[in-house]
Amino acid sequence: MNFTRPHEECGVFGIYNHKEAANLTYLGLYALQHRGQESCGIVSSDGLHLHAHKRMGLVADVFGNPAVFKKLPGSAAIGHVRYSTAGASVEKNVQPIMVDYSRGSIAVAHNGNLVNAQILKAELEAYGSIFQTTMDTEIIIHLLAVARTNSLVDRIVEALNRIKGAYCLLFLTKSRMIAVRDPNGFRPLCLGKLGNAWVVASESCALDLIEATFVREIEPGEMVICTRDGGIKSLFPFKKVAPTPCIFEFVYFARPDSQIFGKNVYLIRKELGRQLAREYPVEADVVISVPDSGMPAAMGYAEEAGIPFELGLIRNHYVGRTFIEPAQSIRHFGVKIKLNPVKELLKGKRVVVIDDSIVRGTTSRKIVKMVRQAGATEVHMRISSPPTSYPCYYGIDTPNRKELISSSHTVEEVCRYITADSLGYLSSEGLVEAVGLSNEVCKACFSGAYPIAFPKPMDNNQRELFEEGDAHNE
Amino acid sequence: MNFTRPHEECGVFGIYNHKEAANLTYLGLYALQHRGQESCGIVSSDGLHLHAHKRMGLVADVFGNPAVFKKLPGSAAIGHVRYSTAGASVEKNVQPIMVDYSRGSIAVAHNGNLVNAQILKAELEAYGSIFQTTMDTEIIIHLLAVARTNSLVDRIVEALNRIKGAYCLLFLTKSRMIAVRDPNGFRPLCLGKLGNAWVVASESCALDLIEATFVREIEPGEMVICTRDGGIKSLFPFKKVAPTPCIFEFVYFARPDSQIFGKNVYLIRKELGRQLAREYPVEADVVISVPDSGMPAAMGYAEEAGIPFELGLIRNHYVGRTFIEPAQSIRHFGVKIKLNPVKELLKGKRVVVIDDSIVRGTTSRKIVKMVRQAGATEVHMRISSPPTSYPCYYGIDTPNRKELISSSHTVEEVCRYITADSLGYLSSEGLVEAVGLSNEVCKACFSGAYPIAFPKPMDNNQRELFEEGDAHNE
Amino acid sequence: MNFTRPHEECGVFGIYNHKEAANLTYLGLYALQHRGQESCGIVSSDGLHLHAHKRMGLVADVFGNPAVFKKLPGSAAIGHVRYSTAGASVEKNVQPIMVDYSRGSIAVAHNGNLVNAQILKAELEAYGSIFQTTMDTEIIIHLLAVARTNSLVDRIVEALNRIKGAYCLLFLTKSRMIAVRDPNGFRPLCLGKLGNAWVVASESCALDLIEATFVREIEPGEMVICTRDGGIKSLFPFKKVAPTPCIFEFVYFARPDSQIFGKNVYLIRKELGRQLAREYPVEADVVISVPDSGMPAAMGYAEEAGIPFELGLIRNHYVGRTFIEPAQSIRHFGVKIKLNPVKELLKGKRVVVIDDSIVRGTTSRKIVKMVRQAGATEVHMRISSPPTSYPCYYGIDTPNRKELISSSHTVEEVCRYITADSLGYLSSEGLVEAVGLSNEVCKACFSGAYPIAFPKPMDNNQRELFEEGDAHNE
Amino acid sequence: MNFTRPHEECGVFGIYNHKEAANLTYLGLYALQHRGQESCGIVSSDGLHLHAHKRMGLVADVFGNPAVFKKLPGSAAIGHVRYSTAGASVEKNVQPIMVDYSRGSIAVAHNGNLVNAQILKAELEAYGSIFQTTMDTEIIIHLLAVARTNSLVDRIVEALNRIKGAYCLLFLTKSRMIAVRDPNGFRPLCLGKLGNAWVVASESCALDLIEATFVREIEPGEMVICTRDGGIKSLFPFKKVAPTPCIFEFVYFARPDSQIFGKNVYLIRKELGRQLAREYPVEADVVISVPDSGMPAAMGYAEEAGIPFELGLIRNHYVGRTFIEPAQSIRHFGVKIKLNPVKELLKGKRVVVIDDSIVRGTTSRKIVKMVRQAGATEVHMRISSPPTSYPCYYGIDTPNRKELISSSHTVEEVCRYITADSLGYLSSEGLVEAVGLSNEVCKACFSGAYPIAFPKPMDNNQRELFEEGDAHNE
Repeated sequence: MNFTRPHEECGVFGIYNHKEAANLTYLGLYALQHRGQESCGIVSSDGLHLHAHKRMGLVADVFGNPAVFKKLPGSAAIGHVRYSTAGASVEKNVQPIMVDYSRGSIAVAHNGNLVNAQILKAELEAYGSIFQTTMDTEIIIHLLAVARTNSLVDRIVEALNRIKGAYCLLFLTKSRMIAVRDPNGFRPLCLGKLGNAWVVASESCALDLIEATFVREIEPGEMVICTRDGGIKSLFPFKKVAPTPCIFEFVYFARPDSQIFGKNVYLIRKELGRQLAREYPVEADVVISVPDSGMPAAMGYAEEAGIPFELGLIRNHYVGRTFIEPAQSIRHFGVKIKLNPVKELLKGKRVVVIDDSIVRGTTSRKIVKMVRQAGATEVHMRISSPPTSYPCYYGIDTPNRKELISSSHTVEEVCRYITADSLGYLSSEGLVEAVGLSNEVCKACFSGAYPIAFPKPMDNNQRELFEEGDAHNE
Repeated sequence: MNFTRPHEECGVFGIYNHKEAANLTYLGLYALQHRGQESCGIVSSDGLHLHAHKRMGLVADVFGNPAVFKKLPGSAAIGHVRYSTAGASVEKNVQPIMVDYSRGSIAVAHNGNLVNAQILKAELEAYGSIFQTTMDTEIIIHLLAVARTNSLVDRIVEALNRIKGAYCLLFLTKSRMIAVRDPNGFRPLCLGKLGNAWVVASESCALDLIEATFVREIEPGEMVICTRDGGIKSLFPFKKVAPTPCIFEFVYFARPDSQIFGKNVYLIRKELGRQLAREYPVEADVVISVPDSGMPAAMGYAEEAGIPFELGLIRNHYVGRTFIEPAQSIRHFGVKIKLNPVKELLKGKRVVVIDDSIVRGTTSRKIVKMVRQAGATEVHMRISSPPTSYPCYYGIDTPNRKELISSSHTVEEVCRYITADSLGYLSSEGLVEAVGLSNEVCKACFSGAYPIAFPKPMDNNQRELFEEGDAHNE
Repeated sequence: MNFTRPHEECGVFGIYNHKEAANLTYLGLYALQHRGQESCGIVSSDGLHLHAHKRMGLVADVFGNPAVFKKLPGSAAIGHVRYSTAGASVEKNVQPIMVDYSRGSIAVAHNGNLVNAQILKAELEAYGSIFQTTMDTEIIIHLLAVARTNSLVDRIVEALNRIKGAYCLLFLTKSRMIAVRDPNGFRPLCLGKLGNAWVVASESCALDLIEATFVREIEPGEMVICTRDGGIKSLFPFKKVAPTPCIFEFVYFARPDSQIFGKNVYLIRKELGRQLAREYPVEADVVISVPDSGMPAAMGYAEEAGIPFELGLIRNHYVGRTFIEPAQSIRHFGVKIKLNPVKELLKGKRVVVIDDSIVRGTTSRKIVKMVRQAGATEVHMRISSPPTSYPCYYGIDTPNRKELISSSHTVEEVCRYITADSLGYLSSEGLVEAVGLSNEVCKACFSGAYPIAFPKPMDNNQRELFEEGDAHNE
Repeated sequence: MNFTRPHEECGVFGIYNHKEAANLTYLGLYALQHRGQESCGIVSSDGLHLHAHKRMGLVADVFGNPAVFKKLPGSAAIGHVRYSTAGASVEKNVQPIMVDYSRGSIAVAHNGNLVNAQILKAELEAYGSIFQTTMDTEIIIHLLAVARTNSLVDRIVEALNRIKGAYCLLFLTKSRMIAVRDPNGFRPLCLGKLGNAWVVASESCALDLIEATFVREIEPGEMVICTRDGGIKSLFPFKKVAPTPCIFEFVYFARPDSQIFGKNVYLIRKELGRQLAREYPVEADVVISVPDSGMPAAMGYAEEAGIPFELGLIRNHYVGRTFIEPAQSIRHFGVKIKLNPVKELLKGKRVVVIDDSIVRGTTSRKIVKMVRQAGATEVHMRISSPPTSYPCYYGIDTPNRKELISSSHTVEEVCRYITADSLGYLSSEGLVEAVGLSNEVCKACFSGAYPIAFPKPMDNNQRELFEEGDAHNE
């Protein structure tokens, strides 16, 4: 199976019916920057035309020049922040995508990943569609363009009924904004209100920044249509399935101040730490965390274990885009660049280090060594989630399976590799219990049980034959 | 009728089977820079993939960094220089266009303009095509993608049979380069050879720069296919029509050192000047030209009239892209920025000023005043082509009809407006005779007799209805 | 008195006798980025010439292109990061300064601020010196150039004997590196070793990043000379005074993982929090901090008070240079951009908010409101230092006195302005005790007792007269 | 003797008492762009402060953004365009130089070259002056700063009495503009009037562009002071010498539409061509020129010889800064990039090629080959100046002596090297006669007779000793 297609991590934001639509979208994207640091874009509508500005780079850089907003007029706008693996990190893949088709112009911003992308693309191309990007999102647009139904809403439903996978989508035409969350509800998407304007965002922290009120989450399988009269219409046009929200959003991805899937992320993370302390206690002098994502779990662990929590590793605040590069070599270098131990604190101590996950193991190994060099007598690693053994196909950028250390190594082997005195992962049951959602969750990255199956894509050999057909017929 | 669509002036260059394909294409484009100063691009093929670099800007700037060529590997490449009116002067319209469709990747470079573009676009969109640019060229690509025939060549023929207008096209796939010239042969296109490599270029001056041999012109309606075995195949797959090469290429557009339509441009221009002297003689002391395009005609005029030719207006060589901006206000300013009279030469003299054409009249007016202020006692303007009364729809950027001073004013009125003592335009018959081509020519810009008729495009009202269809059906 | 001269906050780094001198200096500056975000630069020596690269911008941006290091050859290098008020934020003021004078080339990097700069500048100019920048550092260079002694070391001593104020200086010539710390020892400066190379840095965290060993602090009044034979010479050429290290480095400025003035900053900050809890206890449910600088003090306060410490305010990690702009309007905006409360945590709680200082009061006011809007029933502000009532003239960028809210308002007035339920500042005695240094400290920003007096500078009227002298003598 | 110091070619422009001072200076520099394409700058005065904008690059690029002019307020401004050899092509050397010294701020723009620069610099450094650039101009500023006289004018006179060489200088203080031309009057400098404003420019073409009236040339040894009352004062404070204007300005450097040293350049150049035809006639079919500088001489030659003049070599108008690079390898490449022959014109003809000078011979050799390859049966090269055998030390950038082909080869050898059928240089007497100036000229580049002798500069060995003095005294 070919998974070289980029698995994207993204954030979306949209606002409808506000004079400062583009400016507020900029602020919303700024709050969602942690969901994608590679590129970003905004498309606005002034009622007659769509206007776009999008680039590789951080939100503050791409939209740093106030003159940009003069080119984004209108009272509706959607925006996108994006992260992807190296291959597809190119200008043309920056979202939102904006195109002309028979019914006028439309822009789309997409957070998620399709599992039947290759099959659909091959089929569309066979009927004459031309692809400009390598993004799943473009498939959705083409399906929209070839749909045989009449109204925009019908066409969107027709198109989305063909795709399988994870998606939170924001569509913008010259007169409407439409938000859709996939039936499984893998990724979070919430609805807010700012005066008379409707706001949609991946996480509630984006509503907070612009001082919008949190109204509710958009439901799995729901389509929300913002209309010119200031109202919204809610539809559930897809076949209903049991929702499976992504539990990794709680573990690592969402911001701690966000409320997603009905819960506050910070409080959940502390609870993960407490549960971890119950499952894997250890005698120690101090609990520290890998900043900043591991901090709430470390505080929960320390509280439950009755061991003092300290800031044992200090993070350089000026670590920026330079070290976000996805090359593995730089990630290694990154640990040193990012973190420095407080030696006076760790010297002669038995130290518990809390992190949220272990991916390749190389970072953990460097951290254990760093803590030990700072004088710790024992280093116990505790992870606030189960071993990550399987890649995510629903929108979180994870390495190939063979790069995931837990896919081929036991906990003991990982412990030895990272040179820790002990290693404990939160159990899958403990994770689910601590999160405390009433419904099912997607924990495929820990269990390999994928809620949506993959269709077999056309493989490269077949494609090669197909393509070269004309060469023989010249 | 809606003519806001950009009327582009362009140049194309391609080379097949040379190790330095991209580098030579850069040089070729450099020689063709006069055909388009707004943007440029190169697509190369390494046999497996296509690679592109294209930007707004002059060739020397866009390709000024040698590192660029590392990203353009392979032994085949096509390139494009482009000029267009303001509306469509955007990054996404930079050529060559490169897309993926069912048969793989293809890139296209296009010099010319279609007359049935709007109808074709509306039809393609109705069947689900999505447009990313506002260029005619994209229509050709979509026709290619929806073609029902099998081989690449058949599909190109099927697609081109649907379009009407002027086109010189270069197609590049991973394994082939194909050049096509429209049946009317509006624009020049020539074939050259450099060692074992085949070269195609809008003008022969591009062959000269890379020291390629001029083989012959590509015929109107001809398709030339460069194949892997080093040979070329020539096809004439279109319905034959009487060719109508653009006479304005001789008057103004082509470079004087180029050979087009079987003739050297410089020698033709001198002959235009001689003919002009025969038609509109005047007693004078000195003949000067508006540099640099008017110079050969001025020398021909001077020779025939027996009046000394002098460099009476000196051009600032550093006039560059800054003043190529299409805003009319800056064009006015441009005359002063560009030219300065040699007062010591003009003082007390009766001066003949030769230019190749008068478009709006504002530049000529400024030049006449400038020459008079320099001390000339009489200023006689002579134009080496007939009055430009009609816009070009076949690929030369001309203003709307109402901006063309000759479309609504007699020669006497124009003479008064530009404040000349006398004004003479070369006659249409004199022009054709001086050029001396055996076949018909297109002189629609002078006569209004367009060789290809326009289909009635869908107007904006119809389109609006069509687009808003879904709004009523929500 | 005229204090419009920029009061700079800076960091310096130097390395001598290492093949990767410039690259390591880049890493060192990266670790010191918190000491100056406006501009940075490196000068290297290859034994024959000095080479410089310096720009406005963050270290990771200015040195983000690896090609830069090819232009910085040699085995010795010094670097500088800088922050200054708006007026002098210009390219020409970026350090290190590099000049030619009679004895060759020399580069200087300076952290600190002179108090007799204006007098010295006027005097130097009167004798013919020409100033290219508005930095104090250039004065030092001119004094060096006009010194009458012979050896480089003698000239530096002669020059430094004339200046008064705070300075940590790094000099680089083609063959030597010299570090000097002023007799008062206002700013920290430490010495490290990396293999055979000597390293000098403002803070020990820079040694950590490059894995250099901390050797010792450079003493107040000490001059350390790195020589070609691999050794160092230590001189104490200045008149001895009682050292007065800057206590604000502990409170706010230095990084928590650094060791300065013989103490670890993180542990000192926790102790400040504990002392604050003893001085200003309050009944409350939760202790939170203004991230990130207030965190250690908040943890100390929580520990001492027995109230849970929580992450109640979440910081956007992607806040970067865009919001470092010194305009007051943007600082206000910055609070919202930077911080977001965890509402679920604060709702219905009595909250203690710990910060390290209050400057204008506007930020604190916004934070109190933010916490209250998140649902807190009471908000108690505690500050881990005394009221900042006086500007710093020794190298920390503080606003003019009239902008410091505490210079004209009582604690009660400040409390009312920031709308807190209570406000407590750490006492001056508590601060000194918690820091626990054996010698004197500079706490002028709290007390107004400046260790070095100001000479009366030539005022603007006098200067005006002086300058216009020639106007009357034309 | 060490002549690695850059020999600069430059242009200066200044305007006093006009609201649009900076904007007009921009236009003036644009007209003078041919005098220096490497960098440019403007300093303006608003009566209180000086403001600067200067960069590497062409005038149209450096000042292409209109926002730049908001940062250049005031009613007086001076500007500079500059060319120099590679070594010193750096940002810091861009003129005008602006500094602070005891009497306030002053800016200077300088066209020319000093012959006693090294001696003066060593002396100034010995007394404590610090140099920031490697330009002669900075020496003048330092001399001004250390001058012992009182008024600005006296100080300038005192400073200039110490320097030897070629200089046209423009000084700008907050209240005055002062222009000075050296006693030899090597370089042109003229005075104009635009309404109430005074204008000073290197060439009259700059006056023409802004529509200023040409008043007169500034005399050799004259100092012109523009004062607040709108008047000018003229002084002749230097020891009088016989003026020696640079004859090469006529041959090549000045623009043909300029009037310098009382003569029109275009008419002089035609006369050089006529004289050349008289001295070196040849039987031929056509006269062509190396565009564009050789064109007037070619027209004069053709006229005198009765042979038709044609445009046999066409110049690519888009040749810009990319190929101005001083590397010799690129210059070679440049000939091909720049010029293309009109084959149809040259085929089977005996061709006379006129150029203004031969420097290294490589370009001429390429041109001769190019013309022959185009089909010419004979190629006769005629040069409208004598052999250039000696470098210029008065402000024109010429290569080292050993690179000048005529310094070591006879005319016959050069003819053979460039593969021409015959070669003729205008005689020195013919040149002087054709130019027809009443006084002496500087033709040192042809004769080696330098009007100002060189003092012996301190050589590198001496300097080394001097510098290392301190190393022994550590």
